[in-house]
Amino acid sequence: MNLKEDAWRMIQAAIEAVKPHRLIGDQVRREGDVLYVREQPISLPKAGRLVVVGFGKASAAMAQALEPLVADALSSGLVITKYGHGVPLQRIEVVEAGHPLLDENGLQGTRKLLHLVEPLTEGDVVICLISGGGSALLEALPTGITLNAMQKTVQLLLKSGATIEEINAVRKHLSLVKGGQLARRIAPARCVSLIISDVIGDPLDAIASGPTAPDSTTFQDAVAVLQRYRIWEQVPESVREWLTRGTKGAVPETVKADDPLWERVHNIILGNNHYAVTRAQQVAETLGYHTLVLTSRLQGEAREVARVMAAIAQSMQQDGYPLTPPAAIIFGGETTVTVRVKGKGGRNQELALAALIAMGPHARGYLIASVGTDGTDGPTDAAGGWAYPGIWRVAENKRLNPLDFLANNDSYHFFKQVDGLIVTGPTGTNVMDIGVILVDGTQESHAANGN
Amino acid sequence: MNLKEDAWRMIQAAIEAVKPHRLIGDQVRREGDVLYVREQPISLPKAGRLVVVGFGKASAAMAQALEPLVADALSSGLVITKYGHGVPLQRIEVVEAGHPLLDENGLQGTRKLLHLVEPLTEGDVVICLISGGGSALLEALPTGITLNAMQKTVQLLLKSGATIEEINAVRKHLSLVKGGQLARRIAPARCVSLIISDVIGDPLDAIASGPTAPDSTTFQDAVAVLQRYRIWEQVPESVREWLTRGTKGAVPETVKADDPLWERVHNIILGNNHYAVTRAQQVAETLGYHTLVLTSRLQGEAREVARVMAAIAQSMQQDGYPLTPPAAIIFGGETTVTVRVKGKGGRNQELALAALIAMGPHARGYLIASVGTDGTDGPTDAAGGWAYPGIWRVAENKRLNPLDFLANNDSYHFFKQVDGLIVTGPTGTNVMDIGVILVDGTQESHAANGN
Repeated sequence: MNLKEDAWRMIQAAIEAVKPHRLIGDQVRREGDVLYVREQPISLPKAGRLVVVGFGKASAAMAQALEPLVADALSSGLVITKYGHGVPLQRIEVVEAGHPLLDENGLQGTRKLLHLVEPLTEGDVVICLISGGGSALLEALPTGITLNAMQKTVQLLLKSGATIEEINAVRKHLSLVKGGQLARRIAPARCVSLIISDVIGDPLDAIASGPTAPDSTTFQDAVAVLQRYRIWEQVPESVREWLTRGTKGAVPETVKADDPLWERVHNIILGNNHYAVTRAQQVAETLGYHTLVLTSRLQGEAREVARVMAAIAQSMQQDGYPLTPPAAIIFGGETTVTVRVKGKGGRNQELALAALIAMGPHARGYLIASVGTDGTDGPTDAAGGWAYPGIWRVAENKRLNPLDFLANNDSYHFFKQVDGLIVTGPTGTNVMDIGVILVDGTQESHAANGN
Repeated sequence: MNLKEDAWRMIQAAIEAVKPHRLIGDQVRREGDVLYVREQPISLPKAGRLVVVGFGKASAAMAQALEPLVADALSSGLVITKYGHGVPLQRIEVVEAGHPLLDENGLQGTRKLLHLVEPLTEGDVVICLISGGGSALLEALPTGITLNAMQKTVQLLLKSGATIEEINAVRKHLSLVKGGQLARRIAPARCVSLIISDVIGDPLDAIASGPTAPDSTTFQDAVAVLQRYRIWEQVPESVREWLTRGTKGAVPETVKADDPLWERVHNIILGNNHYAVTRAQQVAETLGYHTLVLTSRLQGEAREVARVMAAIAQSMQQDGYPLTPPAAIIFGGETTVTVRVKGKGGRNQELALAALIAMGPHARGYLIASVGTDGTDGPTDAAGGWAYPGIWRVAENKRLNPLDFLANNDSYHFFKQVDGLIVTGPTGTNVMDIGVILVDGTQESHAANGN
């Protein structure tokens, strides 16, 4: 058994499974005037217009995959994607814009997108292609609030200690498209959103800030967040003014769950971390491993999560549970790194490095890897890192101490020197991260008298 | 299904399974002149003497369970246990002494213990009853090194950042019983050690500092540790002198693995975390749960480990893996808490509190609990804490914010106010911690279109 080769096949297959072309190819088919998305029928307009819009890092690739299926029925289309992520399309326009920071191109692209959908009427259908990054790429700001004012507000929030939910409550109330407001602009046309989720649990109101999903937060909530973190006085006056008007009902709220509008909106998760981890599991099974998917909702500090994964690997080797070797455990989600020292790395590389350390220099017959499905782990050109005995050997030969690199949040420079980087290149999709624990059963129990 | 009742039965059964009386009752039996320990035959001396010694928090209770089995063959015996942990014995003397800090009673008890075993000869047998805490309770110091000098050295090491392995390397070389040296004093009599392990992976050289197990560290290593952490100049001169003499071969090394002595020594793990978690699993099975033991080797920062456990609970509820509900996952090991603010709590209570937060106020149909098998979690009168929806309800009624208590490392005061403490009282044993994740399957998937 070659653990690294097997793990690499699992990882590649998992990423392949959540690429836009594969997701749309596998799950969307056309029969006459009906589009079946995961076997749910979507009637294409007979007399009316069909418009395809999209936003997110994968939106252009999604459009490229969808376009052939609907080309004959298509009236118009436009997708906004990150610089460098455009692909050639036949009928659908591609706009490239700023990410992760909104820029003028994003605002302008959004205006064009809204011009396509706002004139539509009841018989028309809009297909929205939504993926991670959509929050920065699709934006329309209230009159009086400049790009600069918006960015300043977000920066203050990011520094304040507010949670991501709290930040989003503010952002949605400084936007004319987030929080279900794109769906309102699409109405009375029907709206079908096909979504690749990069958020744990696929909460529709969080992915791309929920432009076609109900929002439960209010202008009052947005103001309360700014006050709670004591930045109400620091945000631009235009922001304070808009939010205050909102609390008085002078400007429209985001769209709430009881709005009749939602009868005409259909959000469909086309791909998520679950697809990736279960695909990796299938591959492991065909390779002869006992398999288990632990979770696709993993959270936690990467270096601590790694210790749990190492404990599970050790249990399989020494105790025969949770699986007897040869065993493959797959996990997915998104860990975090609290940066202490400004080295170079990412959450996946840090997880792999901490797992390597937790397994120790003497362990054999295991492999632990973690990788970002978008192919980019932190500000590096790698997607993740490998932990297996051979990495220890190279490190010892080169007199590198993994502990030093972990202490410096410098996982990239460690793995680079020991040939332990996982490099995929940008994958054109993102369903967060996946990881694998493989144990081949060659390391026998070292318990003196155990179990 | 009553998750709390079920979890409580699992936890109680798990702790019961690793109590000295149960371990010895289940695994040690006598047939004529042969004692069978986990089906391994130990011939009792026909002509020679049988001596029972012990040290650790459970050693008196172990002796109480063993005594009736060997009373007729017993020559003498002595066990050293922590203050308040003595129990009435027929023939075996009980000495109570200081723990976690060694005191004069421990030194004096050890001298008496050595007087029992040192005169023994080849035909004799010594049974050693070893459990957690033995490291502080059994000690003989080299001439010239005072209790005070020893304590000062350990305190410097604890503050230095040295690892537990490094600290133990020094301690073993400032001892005349640790690192296999008790076995050397017992020889040429045979030595059978029955061990309740409170260390992950049951490393014989670590449990109670390995008095009857080979040691791989040297005087050179001990000196190197003190120098590496720059405390060589600060330790008492008597310590420097002894260690220096050791490096020159002027005093005996700890006992190495190639010593012929080990042919006459038999270390047997009588109980460990594995026993506890597998017993909890059995109970969960009889209660109708799908079950899985995740690991008995868990490590990591408690609040981060909790997030992994919560992710697994959510996956079972929403995705049906790693188990379909009703499901019980059992984990064991020993997490850590990095204290930021000096509240009151322990690693088990902090894990439960962080799990409660990670599940959020709206989750239903789950329970996560963590508990110390010794019945004592940190400096509190509780053994652990419960996380389940009812705890959130009480907290909200009392306007307590769990996040505030977690931020202050104050899990005890949170759980105390919401009736969420797990209280077992001292259990008389210790195989680290166990935890459970229960999911009853009543919380349906909330994924809009998922999986």
